[in-house]
Amino acid sequence: MKGKPLAAIVSAGLSKFGKRDGLSGREIFAEAAKEAFERCPNLEPKKDIGALIVGNMSESFEHQCHLAPIMSDWAGLLHTPALRVEAACASSGAAIRYGLFTILSGICDVVMVGGFEKMTHRTTFEATEYLAMASDFPLEQWNGATFPGLFALMATAHMHEYGTTEEQMALVAVKNHHNATLNPKAHMQREITVDQVLSSRVIAKPLKLFDCSLISDGASCAILTKPEIARKYTDTPVYIIGSGHGTDAIGLYERDSLTSLKATRLAAKEAYEMAGLSPKDIDIAEIHDCFTIAEIIAYEDLGFCNPGEGGKFIEDGVPTLDGELPVNTSGGLKAKGHPVGATGVAQLYEIFLQLTGQAEGRQVENCNIGLTQNLGGSGATCIVHIYRRG
Amino acid sequence: MKGKPLAAIVSAGLSKFGKRDGLSGREIFAEAAKEAFERCPNLEPKKDIGALIVGNMSESFEHQCHLAPIMSDWAGLLHTPALRVEAACASSGAAIRYGLFTILSGICDVVMVGGFEKMTHRTTFEATEYLAMASDFPLEQWNGATFPGLFALMATAHMHEYGTTEEQMALVAVKNHHNATLNPKAHMQREITVDQVLSSRVIAKPLKLFDCSLISDGASCAILTKPEIARKYTDTPVYIIGSGHGTDAIGLYERDSLTSLKATRLAAKEAYEMAGLSPKDIDIAEIHDCFTIAEIIAYEDLGFCNPGEGGKFIEDGVPTLDGELPVNTSGGLKAKGHPVGATGVAQLYEIFLQLTGQAEGRQVENCNIGLTQNLGGSGATCIVHIYRRG
Repeated sequence: MKGKPLAAIVSAGLSKFGKRDGLSGREIFAEAAKEAFERCPNLEPKKDIGALIVGNMSESFEHQCHLAPIMSDWAGLLHTPALRVEAACASSGAAIRYGLFTILSGICDVVMVGGFEKMTHRTTFEATEYLAMASDFPLEQWNGATFPGLFALMATAHMHEYGTTEEQMALVAVKNHHNATLNPKAHMQREITVDQVLSSRVIAKPLKLFDCSLISDGASCAILTKPEIARKYTDTPVYIIGSGHGTDAIGLYERDSLTSLKATRLAAKEAYEMAGLSPKDIDIAEIHDCFTIAEIIAYEDLGFCNPGEGGKFIEDGVPTLDGELPVNTSGGLKAKGHPVGATGVAQLYEIFLQLTGQAEGRQVENCNIGLTQNLGGSGATCIVHIYRRG
Repeated sequence: MKGKPLAAIVSAGLSKFGKRDGLSGREIFAEAAKEAFERCPNLEPKKDIGALIVGNMSESFEHQCHLAPIMSDWAGLLHTPALRVEAACASSGAAIRYGLFTILSGICDVVMVGGFEKMTHRTTFEATEYLAMASDFPLEQWNGATFPGLFALMATAHMHEYGTTEEQMALVAVKNHHNATLNPKAHMQREITVDQVLSSRVIAKPLKLFDCSLISDGASCAILTKPEIARKYTDTPVYIIGSGHGTDAIGLYERDSLTSLKATRLAAKEAYEMAGLSPKDIDIAEIHDCFTIAEIIAYEDLGFCNPGEGGKFIEDGVPTLDGELPVNTSGGLKAKGHPVGATGVAQLYEIFLQLTGQAEGRQVENCNIGLTQNLGGSGATCIVHIYRRG
C-alpha cells in the first residue's frame, strides 16, 4: 500500500521563535508543550505519554546537558522516561525518527518528540563557535572553518559546476522571508528584495548576511501515536509514512561531492521507498535552508529537479507559496528562525498545520503529502520524513 | 514466557580503559568496534549493520558534537545511519534501550550500540565542570554543586537514616578494586584496603578519594540482532529480556527522597516486569558505582535487599566475586574506570562475557541471568537491562 501509516501525529506545538530574552530553554519548551496539549484535549499527558525524546544540539549555550529530564519535568511530565538525541541541527529530526521507532517497537502507544535551543543570549562569536562543534574538530574547526565558510565552499562549487548565480540564491531568501510575513511565530516577519540580499554584508563569499539563517530561540514538539488509536485524540491525524536517515563523512574533505549531499540522497531514498512514493508525489516541503545554497542543493538531492537545476527551479517560481511545490511555507530557517535543536520538529509542525488546513494566511490548497528534510552540520546527517493527511 | 528474548547480543567490544594519551575518542571507539567485529566473523559490518547508536556525554571534552557520523566512519561503517544519544553517564545505557527499540521496530535486523568518552587530557577542574553540566544549572551548578557534593548529601542522609557507615562504603571500593585486578582492561588493577579508603583525602565529606570512581578514557560497543537471526552470527547469544528507563527531577531539591533513587526504582520495575522476573532471579549484576554510596543505594533500589540494608549487604559479602550475587565483577566504575559515555555498554560487555563464559579469571560459575543499572547524573536518569544466556 502506498503511504501505509507508520505512526500518527495527533498534535503539535511550537513556541514563538525569535529573541526570547529572559526565558530559558526549559521555559520555551514548556510553551511548545502547552500548545500541543491544548490542541489535544483528549490527551492526558502524564498518563498517556510513554516516552519523551528531545533534540538539542549544544550543552554549551545553557551549560546544561542531561536536559531531557528537565524538559520532561517542565512539560508537566515528571517521571516520564525522557532522552536527548543529538545530531547537530538535525537533532529533532532524529527525535521524530526514534519516536517513530519507539511507536513501532510496541513499547509505547504515545510518544512525545520535540526539540529546543536557547541561543540568542550568547554573542555571535560564542554561537558561531558552539555551532562549529558540529563540524570536524581536527581538520575543520581547528583550521578555523565555521559553517558559513563550509557552505560557501559548496556554493562556490555549485556556481562553478552548474552556473548557479547569486541572484538565484537570493531568490530563496526573498521567498522564505515573504512566507514568514504570513507566520506570526516567525523570528523575522518582513519582506526583503533581491537587491537587499545582494548588497548585504559578505559573510563568507559568495554567501552574504541574507543568505544565512538566523540565530534564534525556540522550541517545538509533537505527539505521536500508534495509527490505530489516533482517532481517540484527533479527527484530523497526519500520518508518518516514510522515514529516512542518511549519514556521511563529517568533513567536506572526505565527501564524494561538494555540490550534492549524499546524506540527503540516502535519507530521501529510504523515505521514498518506505512510503512507496516518488518526488512527484510531494505536495509541500519544509527544507533545511540553513543557507540559501542548502535549499537549492536540497531541491536536487530530494529529486524535485535534476542535478544542477536547483537555481532554475527557484527562478521558475516552482517552490513559491503559489507555485507547484511550495517549499518552506513557514519561512524556513532563513526567516522563521533556526533554534537548531528545535528545527526538525518545527518543520513537522508546519507540515502538520498545512495538511490539517490550519496554516491560515499561508495555507496551501489541496495538499495531501508533505516532506521534511532536516540537515545536521554541513550534511553528515540528514533526516527525511514523509507525511500524509489522515 | 519468562525471559522472552527481545533482542540478541551477538558480539561486544571494549577498549582498554585508562589514560589513553595520544588517542582521540574516535580512535578508542574504533578499538572497541574492532574487537566486536573480530568476535563475530560472520558479520559483514558495513553490509549488515542498519544503524549505529552512540552514547556520549559531553561535547566539551573534545570540542565535538555531531559525533555519531564520525564514529560510524572510524568504525568502518561510513554511510551507516548513526545517532548520538545523551543522558549524562547513562548515555550508552540509553543507546542499548533505543537499539533494542530499533530492532523491535522491524526497521533494522542488526544494530550496533556503543559509547565513548575521552576525558583524561583535560584537567580535573575542567572534567569536574563538564560533568557538572549533568546537574541542574540554575539551582545546582550555579551554586557550586559538583557530583561528589551531590552524592555526599545522599551518603550523609543514608548514614543518618539507616546508620550506614563509612567502613561499609569502603568495602564497596575494596571489592571493586579486587575484581579489577582480574580484568586486564580495567583502568586501575590494584588491591586497596578499607584503611586506605578511610584515610584517603576527603573530597566531599563523607566521601573520600577512594569512594569516587575514575576519570578515564574508553569506549564500548555491542552488536544487537533480532533474536531469530542471532545463531547466524554466534553459537552463544545473550538475550535482552527486559529494559527499563526511569526519569526523575534533575535537582536533588525536587526529589522525594535522598536515600533512594526513584529513577532506579522505576527502571527496575519496568525491566523486571518485561522480563517476568524478580530480583531473586538475578545471578550477576553490573551496578553504577560512580560513588560507593551509589552502589549501596542501588542494592536497595534494585530489590537485592531491603531499604536501609545496603550497608549490611556488602558487609555480609553477598555481592563479592564468590558471594551469592556478584556485583561489578568487572571492577565497576570505581576501578575498571568511568569514561562516562562508554559505561552503559561497558556494563553490558561484562555481562555478555560472564553469561558466555568468557570472563576468565573473574568468571562467575552458573550464571544465567544478568542485570545492568546505568545512572545518569545524580539519578535523574536510570536505565536497567536484564539479560539471559541464550
